[in-house]
Amino acid sequence: MEGLKFVETFTPYLQYVHSVKEVVFHGRSRFQQVDILDLHIFGRTLFLDNKIQSAEVDEYIYHESLVLPGLVTVGRPRRVLILGGGEGATLRDVLRFPFVERAVMVDIDGELVDLAKRYLKPWHQGAFEDSRTELIIDDARRYVFETRETFDLILSDLTEPVEGGPSRMLFTLEFYQRLREILTDGGVLVVQSGSADPTYLEFFASLVRTLEEVFPTVRPYWAFVYSFQSPWAFTLASLGRDPLKVPESEIQQVLSEAGSGSRFRYYHAGLHHAMFALPGYVHDALKTQGRVLTDENPFVWEA
Amino acid sequence: MEGLKFVETFTPYLQYVHSVKEVVFHGRSRFQQVDILDLHIFGRTLFLDNKIQSAEVDEYIYHESLVLPGLVTVGRPRRVLILGGGEGATLRDVLRFPFVERAVMVDIDGELVDLAKRYLKPWHQGAFEDSRTELIIDDARRYVFETRETFDLILSDLTEPVEGGPSRMLFTLEFYQRLREILTDGGVLVVQSGSADPTYLEFFASLVRTLEEVFPTVRPYWAFVYSFQSPWAFTLASLGRDPLKVPESEIQQVLSEAGSGSRFRYYHAGLHHAMFALPGYVHDALKTQGRVLTDENPFVWEA
Amino acid sequence: MEGLKFVETFTPYLQYVHSVKEVVFHGRSRFQQVDILDLHIFGRTLFLDNKIQSAEVDEYIYHESLVLPGLVTVGRPRRVLILGGGEGATLRDVLRFPFVERAVMVDIDGELVDLAKRYLKPWHQGAFEDSRTELIIDDARRYVFETRETFDLILSDLTEPVEGGPSRMLFTLEFYQRLREILTDGGVLVVQSGSADPTYLEFFASLVRTLEEVFPTVRPYWAFVYSFQSPWAFTLASLGRDPLKVPESEIQQVLSEAGSGSRFRYYHAGLHHAMFALPGYVHDALKTQGRVLTDENPFVWEA
Amino acid sequence: MEGLKFVETFTPYLQYVHSVKEVVFHGRSRFQQVDILDLHIFGRTLFLDNKIQSAEVDEYIYHESLVLPGLVTVGRPRRVLILGGGEGATLRDVLRFPFVERAVMVDIDGELVDLAKRYLKPWHQGAFEDSRTELIIDDARRYVFETRETFDLILSDLTEPVEGGPSRMLFTLEFYQRLREILTDGGVLVVQSGSADPTYLEFFASLVRTLEEVFPTVRPYWAFVYSFQSPWAFTLASLGRDPLKVPESEIQQVLSEAGSGSRFRYYHAGLHHAMFALPGYVHDALKTQGRVLTDENPFVWEA
Repeated sequence: MEGLKFVETFTPYLQYVHSVKEVVFHGRSRFQQVDILDLHIFGRTLFLDNKIQSAEVDEYIYHESLVLPGLVTVGRPRRVLILGGGEGATLRDVLRFPFVERAVMVDIDGELVDLAKRYLKPWHQGAFEDSRTELIIDDARRYVFETRETFDLILSDLTEPVEGGPSRMLFTLEFYQRLREILTDGGVLVVQSGSADPTYLEFFASLVRTLEEVFPTVRPYWAFVYSFQSPWAFTLASLGRDPLKVPESEIQQVLSEAGSGSRFRYYHAGLHHAMFALPGYVHDALKTQGRVLTDENPFVWEA
Repeated sequence: MEGLKFVETFTPYLQYVHSVKEVVFHGRSRFQQVDILDLHIFGRTLFLDNKIQSAEVDEYIYHESLVLPGLVTVGRPRRVLILGGGEGATLRDVLRFPFVERAVMVDIDGELVDLAKRYLKPWHQGAFEDSRTELIIDDARRYVFETRETFDLILSDLTEPVEGGPSRMLFTLEFYQRLREILTDGGVLVVQSGSADPTYLEFFASLVRTLEEVFPTVRPYWAFVYSFQSPWAFTLASLGRDPLKVPESEIQQVLSEAGSGSRFRYYHAGLHHAMFALPGYVHDALKTQGRVLTDENPFVWEA
Repeated sequence: MEGLKFVETFTPYLQYVHSVKEVVFHGRSRFQQVDILDLHIFGRTLFLDNKIQSAEVDEYIYHESLVLPGLVTVGRPRRVLILGGGEGATLRDVLRFPFVERAVMVDIDGELVDLAKRYLKPWHQGAFEDSRTELIIDDARRYVFETRETFDLILSDLTEPVEGGPSRMLFTLEFYQRLREILTDGGVLVVQSGSADPTYLEFFASLVRTLEEVFPTVRPYWAFVYSFQSPWAFTLASLGRDPLKVPESEIQQVLSEAGSGSRFRYYHAGLHHAMFALPGYVHDALKTQGRVLTDENPFVWEA
Repeated sequence: MEGLKFVETFTPYLQYVHSVKEVVFHGRSRFQQVDILDLHIFGRTLFLDNKIQSAEVDEYIYHESLVLPGLVTVGRPRRVLILGGGEGATLRDVLRFPFVERAVMVDIDGELVDLAKRYLKPWHQGAFEDSRTELIIDDARRYVFETRETFDLILSDLTEPVEGGPSRMLFTLEFYQRLREILTDGGVLVVQSGSADPTYLEFFASLVRTLEEVFPTVRPYWAFVYSFQSPWAFTLASLGRDPLKVPESEIQQVLSEAGSGSRFRYYHAGLHHAMFALPGYVHDALKTQGRVLTDENPFVWEA
């Protein structure tokens, strides 16, 4: 195989080499290296700092898995806060539901959001223009500590904390304590929690431990995101209902209220409970690995 | 990254580049290219014709997922037939259970089995020497059509049919009809069914359709095998119980009868039912894709 | 190393992986895949059908080596014909000399020439706009057999004949016989002759043998083109002087007549004769390899 | 292309990916990573610290170019000192001449020499067993400063100085002053001087400048070593004759005295003078780049 390629270094010991059909964008924003490429299998694909963020072929797996389990646990959230989520797909899936009255999205990288608006239409599908949307270009931590608003559902769609990056202060005990304060009664927080592969569970386990310090009900779950080449972890932290106790019939009802044209391709009522059933090796890791992450001692991913 | 590598071409458009610590074996058997390598993340890893077969780091995910759901559905199978499975790990997981009285394993590649005996001890853990084992080096099709034995559980641990390869006649209606004949009442067949990623469901869907022509109860399920970089499909075909109706408590009881030192790290009673909950995109594909595979018109995977 | 790459398959067994700074153009002309990339070491680089054609960092090595030894052998050619040479750099080096009155360039790929005009300015440096230039977009073979013009110097700047490509009829006995007819007395033909590495001398040897059937004096020579990762072969066929008999002082004089701003960075009077001194392994190959290439049995490079 | 590969990082921006037929040896000596591989095009190939050292297909180009121009400049050297040269091929080419009475080879890496003895027979061809050979496993610097012997020809076959490596003290003014002291009248030193590609001339230029401080006659020259993917630089420093003044007929005579079975495949009398003709870009670099290397401020190659 020859010609144009994109090499993703998953670890120093394993690389993925993608054949590139078209380079849609290749450059840097103020915060990160941005590559938007048309790949042969994955379709249009976004890479940040050379790591895949989402691919046209299956971005719905990640985004439905981030949004829907928490949304149905709240029931019919009216106000939703999204931290990160530059592509606009998390926003899109939230806005499918007419009961959502307001969606605030805070992303630090305005250039990335502009690139998404221009090149990633299948992701946002116009969600940035929805009158219920407020887009704030700012550091999520500053926003969260300054806002006087409260939310029924908060979705943490943030990239993992890498050395020198700002996001490590967005996965700490103190940050989650503040998120709890701006959640309404019965409110739910969902945190994307990194890979759930057997070699990389420290981050997931640490998030679960940290959230358990703050929330009465914490439920880890997972989904299989093909283009990430990995099972993917999420953590749901609830001030109200236990997601394991939401009946299938209610989930079906809530999903049926999504706007016309909405079609969920991964998540469905019959999958909800199964997503919370984790394999033995994850249970083992959640028991033996991880630590409470604090502002003073946050998580930093070593590449 | 420089030095010794192993390149796996998942499709012409996506390659995985593994850093190699040691080359344990690099050569050809009569049937296939065999590479046994020590990799940095995956540990000892077997590649056949340059495709990963199993890695020390997580071979248990695949093997437990292949063996255990069917085994607990039968209950306490006494006679088990394994088609393929050269590494010996399927055999190992079957023999963990003292109620198994006889395990016949038929693999066409005797050289591969010899390499496994020598270099893949963590896989077989001496299973080839177990007095309950009969190892037959032969074409599985010939064996199956000639045997006069019957089995309570049959495990199809065969590589996907590639052009020119012999295994395509091992995934057909006629072959499965014969397997049904050599199953005892209440017997179960489990077929490893390839990747369950959203771009590659034709094989899985075809297997489900073909097995539905032969067996009264057919249940597709999946697992996430990290070193395959993909969610993985399996199909359980039963002459007896529906696997969805096996109670958790019974599963727990059966698993507890495994010999001392047995430790399952993926599968457990609480995961059994969740493994059969498939996402929307798989349900869609099982409805719209696939065809009945026959001796005349078998499946051939085009690389 | 991660991110955007360009992979060049020199042979199925050796690949070069270039890190890409910018993709300037990535697409197909009617005749070939065209990639114009900014690379880290090589600067702007042109690839045709995924093979490097020339790189900013050292295109002068190839072009000076193609143009100058033949030009000084003629002395002061007035009319020059260039076959191929889409980038315009061969044309540029020819037009440096005020004694050149007319330069005809025939290239089959008009889209490539347009891309060169736009993106490869350091190559042509405006040579396409020189009033002495006539650019003809056509099959070189058709042009050569139809023209009624004669030339003092002909430069064959054609890519090697690959299977299915049209250029194989541009390296044959019959074609060279026709070139001889349109050369003036004392005229010289120079043919770029592929790699001169020890593993790939069949093409070079065949060209020398074929030209020896047609021309009284044939002199193979070489240069080291760094970005081709290989020593590079050329063949000079003369109806007049032997290039080995051109005195250094005359070469110096001719070079000094190049227009102001001209600066040769590889070729100089003191290098001229050394370029015709070939190593033992090339002498051996020229004796033992190669055959006369004919229209009926042309050379086809097997990738 | 899939399967076993060896990746050589020429610079962070250009990698060579070799297809591997067999891994002959993969491990570390006390001093360096050693890989001896059978490659498809290059045949058996030695890599040290992941950099190619020599390949079966064309090791003769490098070794003849290192040994012969200096040897014929001396005339008929009787005592020869080789610094480095672990493969034994420099030694082999020296010992082809019956007038050589004694050859001392000093290499720091005894394990490498043992591997060469075992796996690189085409390189040494038994030279280590020749009664004229003395092999000394030691730091070349220590040997050179302690020896009381003198030599007619010294060949510096040392790898370039990399950070942290010991060889940087083997390319300094002080070291060359000592080499001058142990040369006989009319003696010659030849130093392999790294790549002569247009992007990497600092090392070559520095060696020429440094040697010019010590020796009355210094002549840089080059050869095209295909498997190095680069033109290669050498520097000849003479206390006696100027290599440019050795007549071709004398070279022919000396070469003809090589033992039966000797066959030179790159160097010959007709090539000798051409090897000292360098291109414009090298002349420019020798004028403008480089500095005198000293013990206090040696050359260190930054990868």
